[in-house]
Amino acid sequence: MSDRFVALDWGTTSFRAYLADAAGRVEKTVSAPEGILAVSDGDFDGALERHIGDWDASLPVLAAGMITSRQGWVECPYVATPAGLADLAAALHTHVSKRGRHIAFSTGLSYRSSDGLPDVMRSEETQVFGSFDEANHFVTPGTHSKWIVVEGKRVTRFTTYMTGEVFAALKGHTILGRLMKDDPDNDEAFVRGVTSALADPAGFLHRIFSVRSLALFGEMAPEHLSSYLSGQVIGTEVAHATAANPRSADYVVLASPGIGGRYVRAMGLAGLKVRHGNPQAIVKGLARIAVAAGLLH
Amino acid sequence: MSDRFVALDWGTTSFRAYLADAAGRVEKTVSAPEGILAVSDGDFDGALERHIGDWDASLPVLAAGMITSRQGWVECPYVATPAGLADLAAALHTHVSKRGRHIAFSTGLSYRSSDGLPDVMRSEETQVFGSFDEANHFVTPGTHSKWIVVEGKRVTRFTTYMTGEVFAALKGHTILGRLMKDDPDNDEAFVRGVTSALADPAGFLHRIFSVRSLALFGEMAPEHLSSYLSGQVIGTEVAHATAANPRSADYVVLASPGIGGRYVRAMGLAGLKVRHGNPQAIVKGLARIAVAAGLLH
Repeated sequence: MSDRFVALDWGTTSFRAYLADAAGRVEKTVSAPEGILAVSDGDFDGALERHIGDWDASLPVLAAGMITSRQGWVECPYVATPAGLADLAAALHTHVSKRGRHIAFSTGLSYRSSDGLPDVMRSEETQVFGSFDEANHFVTPGTHSKWIVVEGKRVTRFTTYMTGEVFAALKGHTILGRLMKDDPDNDEAFVRGVTSALADPAGFLHRIFSVRSLALFGEMAPEHLSSYLSGQVIGTEVAHATAANPRSADYVVLASPGIGGRYVRAMGLAGLKVRHGNPQAIVKGLARIAVAAGLLH
Repeated sequence: MSDRFVALDWGTTSFRAYLADAAGRVEKTVSAPEGILAVSDGDFDGALERHIGDWDASLPVLAAGMITSRQGWVECPYVATPAGLADLAAALHTHVSKRGRHIAFSTGLSYRSSDGLPDVMRSEETQVFGSFDEANHFVTPGTHSKWIVVEGKRVTRFTTYMTGEVFAALKGHTILGRLMKDDPDNDEAFVRGVTSALADPAGFLHRIFSVRSLALFGEMAPEHLSSYLSGQVIGTEVAHATAANPRSADYVVLASPGIGGRYVRAMGLAGLKVRHGNPQAIVKGLARIAVAAGLLH
């Protein structure tokens, strides 16, 4: 058993390694835009050593993210909710690298909602396990945003929203992007989009057309259209999630300040009590899983 | 005044010309995939003659569609609703072509809904004016689908949904398309998507993720995912429009059988009385506008 470990957050588009202790305190960090899709010929072993080759090979490594998916290094089946640290620790898949590193892969979670549809995540659960002493309701914004509920230190349910990816597709591949001129976030336009969404949550396919019609009528500047669309899309997520979750709970947003700030703003407009959490909670979460698995003390 | 005319339906991606009489009876048709975006150097005059050069140049021409937009031949400002035949006739913009053809451009309509957002259309109003003896509620499916209400032979309100364009963007430019294998329409998967949408209209950004999760769990065949997504998207439109329009009305869908059939199916599942209309009603509509303008008898 070690008193330090390597936490590996290896996603679709980025690689992050942290040299940390059992409390999740970070000594060193390496990050690179070498997500799993950028690794050629499946040589994850080589990619790992390029980034952390000078880190002690005797330290245990705990890896999470899309690196455990079908496109990753080792595919690990999802663990069904409700699930806590012990469940994830029991599901670790260990692999010894060419360099002799013991790498434990921590898999994601699945949930079957009341409408019968399956839902899945990989890596957000580690952020939550690093934060569950802070709150019971978490939001992890991003390409696929998640609303995650913790009860008794276990993830009991969660809901995915394709918010980030839908925004990018609308902006990049529909008529809505054509009139846009980008500028820094415009709060007024963002709030107008969120407010519109909160007032008519089911009207998404109609409301987004106003990005075009407001521009056609000269009622919104081209520089504000992107923020307005962002408000429409994020507001649609927040409106639906607000209806499905308790109003009185404390919500924590786990994200970088930019996107996290938009969510805090939108959730505040929806009347939720919300604050920023630690976006690096993934290190603390992986440390807790490693401790639960007896790899770290 | 003439007893025949040329009806021109010139949109973004296609050109259609009809030689017709005042009742909208069609004698000859020319169609080509030469929409306004395919016309180089703005030479609409030349493009028109390539297609109908052998048609009598003394016949009046009535043109509608994106040909009257900023990207078209002559930009015509929208006419505000409520608007009837006389309003469109009064707003015709006439242009004499190099060949000496008298071309009257028929513009589109605008509507300001109760939420303050502007809405617009170009060309769907001509289909409706060709059909208003059939019903008072029309749906024109497509890239931008419209739900249009007629009262006293005037269009009084309408709502745009970006359904077709959003479906294409999701299928072509998000993770949802990656697992799909195309096949002919699958009714069961389509119905499952519509039913899911009707049960949770505000959950669009969440529900569409099930295209991926159902495939990941082996609960839907790759060949059915596209139909399922189509059901999710069209169902979202129908759920919202159904809540905003009377349940007891007769609805007419103006579209080709393929896409029109999907709408009739989805609207039936939502409990609406719906039937197919004449997708070529645009000729009759343009004939009526031409008669109202005194160009045709």
